[in-house]
Amino acid sequence: MSDHTAPIKPLNQLARIEPATLDDLPKLVDLLLTLFQIEEDFQPDRALQEKGLRLILEQPSRGRIFVVRTDYEIIGMVNCLFTISTAMGGFVVLLEDLIINTEFQRQHYGTQLIQYVVDYAKKKDFKRITLLTDKLSEDSQKFFVNFGFEHSKMIPMRLNLEV
Amino acid sequence: MSDHTAPIKPLNQLARIEPATLDDLPKLVDLLLTLFQIEEDFQPDRALQEKGLRLILEQPSRGRIFVVRTDYEIIGMVNCLFTISTAMGGFVVLLEDLIINTEFQRQHYGTQLIQYVVDYAKKKDFKRITLLTDKLSEDSQKFFVNFGFEHSKMIPMRLNLEV
Repeated sequence: MSDHTAPIKPLNQLARIEPATLDDLPKLVDLLLTLFQIEEDFQPDRALQEKGLRLILEQPSRGRIFVVRTDYEIIGMVNCLFTISTAMGGFVVLLEDLIINTEFQRQHYGTQLIQYVVDYAKKKDFKRITLLTDKLSEDSQKFFVNFGFEHSKMIPMRLNLEV
Repeated sequence: MSDHTAPIKPLNQLARIEPATLDDLPKLVDLLLTLFQIEEDFQPDRALQEKGLRLILEQPSRGRIFVVRTDYEIIGMVNCLFTISTAMGGFVVLLEDLIINTEFQRQHYGTQLIQYVVDYAKKKDFKRITLLTDKLSEDSQKFFVNFGFEHSKMIPMRLNLEV
């Protein structure tokens, strides 16, 4: 007799990490919107988030969006932008938009994604990974400290050029 | 009778702002080294600074280095890196390495450079300019606030991948 209470979610061990493609765009926008709804600094706007994600997906030299996925759905994403550091003398990664679908949180998918990015960046000879984390979230800071991330003595300032 | 005490420095009004070229590389490295000698977060290293600057100068799609210069010398520089923001839905500028040669400080060249960058970024449809400034330098923060830059609620964390 079959067990009708068995979970229909795919098993964790079937999850894999890979670069997102343009086919993933709608789901990536959904994930980004959940992030921007909780971040104080940003107003969610579907058209803008789609435009930004599309620019990255269409220009791999600018960055990669990595996803944890099963055959059925996207569990989480992280956005790695590539730029140059005059301090480090080479290419560096800006890590943004680390998001795990709420259904899948607290299952170490975030850890797997960041470990993947760190390994990827080392392999590709990037010199540094920088991210901006929420000043008030100790959990978030601890999470990154566990990977060896260190606080810097700098603070970010921004000039919005949109009218 | 000629006035031998006349200043040999070119007049301020002959200064102009323009993108740096590879010919400027040695002087840009000198300027960068003066900055990194005073910044706590960085160790100066001529070879690395030259490598980073060269990468930018050789790939204009990655960014521009603008200089204030006369026919005789470089008065100052600023480094504008181009990346993509999923929040803003377009290209954004990371502003780094704003340096005025010590001989020419307190003559508003920094203001002219930043105004130039802001105008450039608006004209080219960049959506935002972000910079990291020294947490402890109130002067530096005030300087950028005067252009409309605002503090963000985020703090930077960095993972150095060099061994």
